[in-house]
Order: sequence, then C-alpha cells, then structure tokens
Amino acid sequence: MSEARFEPLTVETLGARLATVAALTERIGPDHAAWSVREVGDGNLNLVFIVEGANGGAIVKQALPYVRLVGESWPLPLRRSFFEYHALTRQAARDPGRVPEIYHFDEAQALIVMEYLTPHVILRRALIEGQRLPRIGRDLGLFAARTLFRGSDLSMEAPARKKDLALFAGNIELCDITENLVFTDPYFAAEMNRHTSPQLDELVAQLRADRDLKVEAQHLKRLFTSAAETLLHGDLHTGSVMVTMEDSRVIDPEFAVYGPMAFDVGMLLANFWMAYFSQAGHETDGSRDAMRAYLLDVVVEIWRVFREEFTRLWETERAGILYPSTLYEDQGDPLGARQALDHMLADIWRDMLGFAGVEMHRRILGLAHNAEFETIEDPDLRASCERPALLLGRHLVVNRRRIAGLEEIHAIARRLNEEARP
Amino acid sequence: MSEARFEPLTVETLGARLATVAALTERIGPDHAAWSVREVGDGNLNLVFIVEGANGGAIVKQALPYVRLVGESWPLPLRRSFFEYHALTRQAARDPGRVPEIYHFDEAQALIVMEYLTPHVILRRALIEGQRLPRIGRDLGLFAARTLFRGSDLSMEAPARKKDLALFAGNIELCDITENLVFTDPYFAAEMNRHTSPQLDELVAQLRADRDLKVEAQHLKRLFTSAAETLLHGDLHTGSVMVTMEDSRVIDPEFAVYGPMAFDVGMLLANFWMAYFSQAGHETDGSRDAMRAYLLDVVVEIWRVFREEFTRLWETERAGILYPSTLYEDQGDPLGARQALDHMLADIWRDMLGFAGVEMHRRILGLAHNAEFETIEDPDLRASCERPALLLGRHLVVNRRRIAGLEEIHAIARRLNEEARP
Repeated sequence: MSEARFEPLTVETLGARLATVAALTERIGPDHAAWSVREVGDGNLNLVFIVEGANGGAIVKQALPYVRLVGESWPLPLRRSFFEYHALTRQAARDPGRVPEIYHFDEAQALIVMEYLTPHVILRRALIEGQRLPRIGRDLGLFAARTLFRGSDLSMEAPARKKDLALFAGNIELCDITENLVFTDPYFAAEMNRHTSPQLDELVAQLRADRDLKVEAQHLKRLFTSAAETLLHGDLHTGSVMVTMEDSRVIDPEFAVYGPMAFDVGMLLANFWMAYFSQAGHETDGSRDAMRAYLLDVVVEIWRVFREEFTRLWETERAGILYPSTLYEDQGDPLGARQALDHMLADIWRDMLGFAGVEMHRRILGLAHNAEFETIEDPDLRASCERPALLLGRHLVVNRRRIAGLEEIHAIARRLNEEARP
Repeated sequence: MSEARFEPLTVETLGARLATVAALTERIGPDHAAWSVREVGDGNLNLVFIVEGANGGAIVKQALPYVRLVGESWPLPLRRSFFEYHALTRQAARDPGRVPEIYHFDEAQALIVMEYLTPHVILRRALIEGQRLPRIGRDLGLFAARTLFRGSDLSMEAPARKKDLALFAGNIELCDITENLVFTDPYFAAEMNRHTSPQLDELVAQLRADRDLKVEAQHLKRLFTSAAETLLHGDLHTGSVMVTMEDSRVIDPEFAVYGPMAFDVGMLLANFWMAYFSQAGHETDGSRDAMRAYLLDVVVEIWRVFREEFTRLWETERAGILYPSTLYEDQGDPLGARQALDHMLADIWRDMLGFAGVEMHRRILGLAHNAEFETIEDPDLRASCERPALLLGRHLVVNRRRIAGLEEIHAIARRLNEEARP
C-alpha cells in the first residue's frame, strides 16, 4: 500500500487496502471482509476510523493534505503524520503506557494504525459532563515531567538530541499554526478570529490595546520559537487526553517540536482553568461547586507531581551534558545541584504561567475555541464564563515574574468567578 | 578533485590538485607550476595555505579529520568545513564585505578557496603589539547586530530559519567542544585543563568550589544549547578577526550554530577585557595606559554600535514572525514595539555578561588559552594579569542580572587592574 501515491481512505476501501498489514490482521482478525469500519473524525485536521474485526479493534488515523475542518483552501502537509509517529515512539519510550500503542506506520499514505482505546472518552467531554476523574492529576503530571525531562539535554546524549531537534524542526506548518494562532492573532483583529459578541467586545478591545500584554505575548512567542529545550507534545490540552476512571492516555502529538518545557505544562493547566470558569455554564443539572474544587485540585496535583517527578529524575537520571554531577555531587556539593534544579523549576513556573495565559486568550478570541465554552448556548452566560478566563489570562501573562504560587492564582480565580456570576 | 576520496593537501600537491578549479585560476593565474604555495596554519584545527600566482593570491583552507594541534587521537569530522562554508555565505549576505569572499568550496575534500586578506593581521596579535585600530569597534558592532538580527525570527521567513536551524544542528562535534570546554571543564579539574601554577592555584580552587558560579555557568550552558535564536559565528574572539587600519574581516565561523544572540557579543567583549588585563605583561616597551583606555573604549563602542544598529534594523527590517508591526505600529502604538526592543536588548545585555564571564574563565583555566596571556613569559607577571580577569569573570557570571552598565564594569576592571600590579 505504501508504494502507491497518497489516497485518502474511505469506510468502503479501508478493509481492502489494509488487508495485507500483518500488524493489523494479527490483532483484529484476518478476514477483512468481516471488519466493521466507522469514521469518527478527531477534531479539525484528519481522518480517523475505528476498525473492528473478530479478535479486536484498532484506530486508523490518516492525515489529509489540507485542514479537514476548513477544506482544500487551507493546505497542510501530509508529513505531520510522520512527526506524530516519531513523537509517539519517543513518548512511549519516555513514559511507557501513557500513549496509544503504534501497530503500523505508512509514511506515503500518512497513516498510523494504533491501539483502539475503549471505553475511553475525551477528557474535555468528561469534564463538561462534570465527571471527576481520579487519576488525571497524577498521570498528566508524570507524563509532562518524564517526556520533558527525558527529551532534553538533561537526559539525552547531545548528538541524539540535536538530531531530534533537526528532525522536528521540519514540522514547519504545524508550528506556524501555533506561532500565529496562539501568540499573535488573538491580539489583533485577525481575519479568522471570533469571540462572543457583542458581550465581550469591550474587554476584547481593551486587551488588544493593552501594550504590556502584547509585548509579553510576543516575548513568549520568542521563547516558543527559540527555546529548543525538549520535545514538546505541542498541543497538550484536555482534548488530547483520553480517560477512563482507571486510565489516562495522551494522544495527537502532531504539533510536536523542540520548544520550552513550560509550554506543554502551561497549555495543560490553562485548559483546566478554562474548565473551571465554564462550570457555571453547565450548572443546569445542579451545583458544580464540587466540580470547581476538583478542577483546581487537579491543577495543584499536576504541578506538584510534575515538580516531584522532575526532581526525582534530576536526582537519578541527570546523565546529559547539563548540570553534570562532576561539578556538584562529585565535589561533595549536592546542594549546588539542588540550587540549580530549584532555579530551573522557578524558570519553568514563570514561563508556564505566561503560556497558560496566552492559551486562555486564544481559545476565546482566536480561531480554535473550546467545547466547554462553545457548548454554552446562551451567549450572555457564555460570555460571563469567558470573561474571567480572559482576565486571569491577562494577569498571568503580564505578572508571571511576580506570582508566588497556585494558592494566589486560585484565590484570584475564585474571586473572578464569583464576580462574573450574572 | 571532489570525486576522489579525501586527501590532505600538501605544499607540493596543492598546485596540481587545484589546477582545474577555474574560480582559482581565473584569479591568480592559470599556470599552476608557477604558483607559490606556503602553509601558514590557522590555529588549532586545520590546514591553511597561501597560494600566489602571477595575477594574485588566495587562501586554501582544508579541514583534517582530527584536531591538527592534538593529532589523530582527537578525531573531528571533515564536515565542519561544510558548516564554515554555509556560515560564510550567510554572513556575507547579512553584512556584506565583512567576511572573506568565497571562490570555491569542495565538500568531499573539506576545502574552501577564499580571498587572501593582505596586509591584514590577526587582531589579537595587533592588540598584543599595542596597535590601536580605529575601525574595529564600529565594524564588529555592526557585524554582530546585522548577522544576529538577520539570522533570527525577527527577520527571516520562519521556514527558512527552521531549515537553517536544522542544518546547523548537524555541527555536533564543534558544538560539543564549546559546550564542554567553555561551560564545564574550567569549573572542575578536567584532564585537559591547565593554568598558571602555582600562582593561581588558590584562586582556581576557590572558583571551583564556588557554588553560585558553577550553577550560573550551567544555566548559561543551558541557554547556549537550547536558545536557538540566531545563527552564531560561534567563536567570535579577537583571533577570528583580521585587520588593517582601514579594514576589519571576520573569519573562521566553523563553530557556527543556532544559539543565543548574547553569545557572540559576550565572547567578543570578553576578549577585549582580557586584552586589557594583559597589557601589564607587555609594558616592556613603555606605558600601555593609552592602550588600556583604548581597549575599554572599543568595548563601549562595540556595545553602543551593536545597540544602535540592532535598533535601526528593528525599526526598518522587522519582517519576521516576532513582534509584528500588526500588533504595535499598525495599531498606532510604536511605543509598544520600542518597549519590546528595550526588553530584548536588556535580555541580551544580561546574558552577554554571563557569556563574557565564562569565556574569560575558560581561556585561563581550560584547554585553549589566549596569546595575550601566553606570551607573558614570567609566570608571576602572567598570573598577575590573569587573576583580575578571573575575578571580573566571576563577578559578571554571578551578578549579571544586577549590573547596570559598562561604566560600572569598567570601574571594577580598572580597580582590579590596579590592585593586581606587583
């Protein structure tokens, strides 16, 4: 199949075209005529099929040469599939069991056959429904610490890191989406932007006239484009996590690129904060007070677990060229290494807050909105949920160098949430 | 010639082997039997020949598969010549006339034929002799501003910058030299280190036990390995500049890599500060007070010209994805863009001081020492010149976030220099 030129799969052709892929037939059964195939979409970009045979199921994800949501007018190269595949293999090695298992990759067809996660649901949907998943704080904190630490010069051999840096630097078009849609477009009247109007018009105008905010947002963009510290997931929000009560899996790393450690963590926390502010819009079935408390607890847990695991890895796996033990522990100065670690965690904290802030802005002012806000039909109610998120985002971006901890942020979040109630 | 396997040139074989290179014969004359060929060395790494014919001369620089100074026990890949060639072409485009013109590149033979700069001398040698070159402050300030700005996301199209980032990420072995010899080895008893002993032993022991210094040096290493802002020269010291009273040329960019803007500037200023402290060792022919004043003036001029030119480019050539005018000037807020520029220059200032500090340390404590100190034969006198440079280096690395300007640094430098006099 890989020798043919690229051809999108369909529900009708998938069976015949993948019938000879042993990695698939061994898992789901050889009789492709008996397979059931459903197209399920995956968001905005790709074709996604569930294929089930006598012995089991699999996911088939295929890139299209354009953005699926928009159509052929927005071309997007097939090789994003190549980067997703390579990111998945690295994440699987760095945090085993946390990403779907890959069965087969066909570069020419931009196609990945992988584990069918069931009965998993998208975390964002679960949070909208008010589900309190017990494992996500720990699982996501560990995932972030392990993938970010182990993809960096703290851990890897320098030549291998430079090789991966060069490899993922080829993921130009998806990086361009992040660079422009996250860091620039929300801050002026870009063509593809939209927001809840007219309710938010005044605040949006204020933000777009806010010099300090726009300068800091571009400092963060500079950090994103130049600080090639580690292999990022690149799109680590609650729509990129699939969950059950017992399991959490991270999917869709096609935006993977070498970038600053703080980016993944900041995007992740921002999406929990947005879930927090959206709760008032989903309170028809009863109070969401417990859900709100849960969401802030998850943020606290992710950040705590991230720091603890990063510290553990620093102390046990710091084998790269940075902060070598030759200079500290081997000289009888473990406190030197600890001082360096604490500085680094402080840097990540500061930048993480900034990335969280721009993520909240772009999800409310830019092209790609979040379901937790979008599913609130009453625009007045929706705006009253989005407004505090915009305000907190501005606060984080501009004041990130002087914010002491999550308690301080959560006190502000609670207050903004109270004040926003209609 | 390029089809043959790699073969080092010799004075005897060069003529015959390059006789068919039209770019060379057109310039120096076709009769290769009449060429005069001299091997001149170039420092530590490569073969360098001057070849002169009836109509002119040229330089032939050839990499060897090992470090020339050390021998075959220290292998170093030939492809450093490839990176030098590509860096030279980019520097020529970004600051025209400031690097030697390339006549011919032969990748398989790791060989560059380029302009013979005459009567130029190496800047470091001229400074040891007490020469006061009138143009270097301006020329080097412009070179740094233009190459650093124009190789970054402030200026380039993002896909072109990412392509170059990936290309130069292949320069692994030379980067490794910088990473280890500059940022790590000086701070512990690494095998290849040497220093003026026993005169400096006590101070060296202090520095190697200095927790804050060692932590900050590694923070700077992290910045060097991850902050892929722009294409660096990578080895921009006074030994990489050739001068006359009318001209300055920057040579030898084989350490080129994407890195932080502050690195080139910091290494450059550090070498003028070392020249300053070395003057007492070269005072046999009379007072060097005027030379000392000149060297500090050059530092002031480089930094002033760098900032002025960077500012001019920011205002006239800011066409990249960072800090787009869409957000500032086009919104009637030029002050926003100016604020961002000033923040960025403050960041460069801070990091530049740190890189300058480690450069001073590694040139006195590490493997590769500077001729201005090495040519001082009396070890007591040499140590008295090196000591204040070590002290200033420590000051800059550790205090770089709280140093206001060059006046403050130069007051300290003058005081350290006075106190060091035997």
